[in-house]
Amino acid sequence: MPTIPESHRDLLDAQVATLATVGPDGRPQSSALWFLAEGDTVRLSLITTRQKTKNLMAQPVASLVILDLADPARYLELRGDVSIEDDDDYEFANRLGAKYGMPDVSVIDGPGERRVVVTIEPVRVHAIDMNAG
Amino acid sequence: MPTIPESHRDLLDAQVATLATVGPDGRPQSSALWFLAEGDTVRLSLITTRQKTKNLMAQPVASLVILDLADPARYLELRGDVSIEDDDDYEFANRLGAKYGMPDVSVIDGPGERRVVVTIEPVRVHAIDMNAG
Repeated sequence: MPTIPESHRDLLDAQVATLATVGPDGRPQSSALWFLAEGDTVRLSLITTRQKTKNLMAQPVASLVILDLADPARYLELRGDVSIEDDDDYEFANRLGAKYGMPDVSVIDGPGERRVVVTIEPVRVHAIDMNAG
Repeated sequence: MPTIPESHRDLLDAQVATLATVGPDGRPQSSALWFLAEGDTVRLSLITTRQKTKNLMAQPVASLVILDLADPARYLELRGDVSIEDDDDYEFANRLGAKYGMPDVSVIDGPGERRVVVTIEPVRVHAIDMNAG
């Protein structure tokens, strides 16, 4: 798996990433969302009824961009595949929630909503700094 | 064409957007880039040799996210198709460049590089504000 260079590792602590998936019509779809990096592994907590989750279940490929909000010429892209696992007990969701001051993520979910853990498995890592020329 | 709601029109003046395209392997690819909105129409200036441009030429579909850097719970997604036109005379590139204090964009391009204008033609507009609950 490609590594994330030291120059951009600070972005793994950022608050928001943008996830691109491919929809059933072949068009990309993007949304901003929470993420949690543990070491170099970036994971998301998604609700199964959402279109992006359905897209990943049908086509387990994604691109995740973490933009430096203070200097948007700097960003990190993780492009590759995803693996999806059940998280019915909110074990991962609450670990991610702790990053955002929300130790019990179930409070924001509707009745009957289910969560999965999406792990990004990059085949390419792009660490961009347009300031560097 | 779907319209951009008043609540998110300020984002059309932002400096950076994230463009997702679909690569030849079917995986999405994302990158941050400059854009210019004229009215509700968002256009990009791309160099033809870049992978994202090749992706758009092969599959003219895209998702563009403009994140509010000061409040990343707010963003605008334009999802849909693109049209691509030559810009050999830099007529559009320099109009976009003017937004960024670069009236002659050709100075940053290598010899033999060609530019095209990419116009986003959204089939869906998502104006998100997670603060709104």
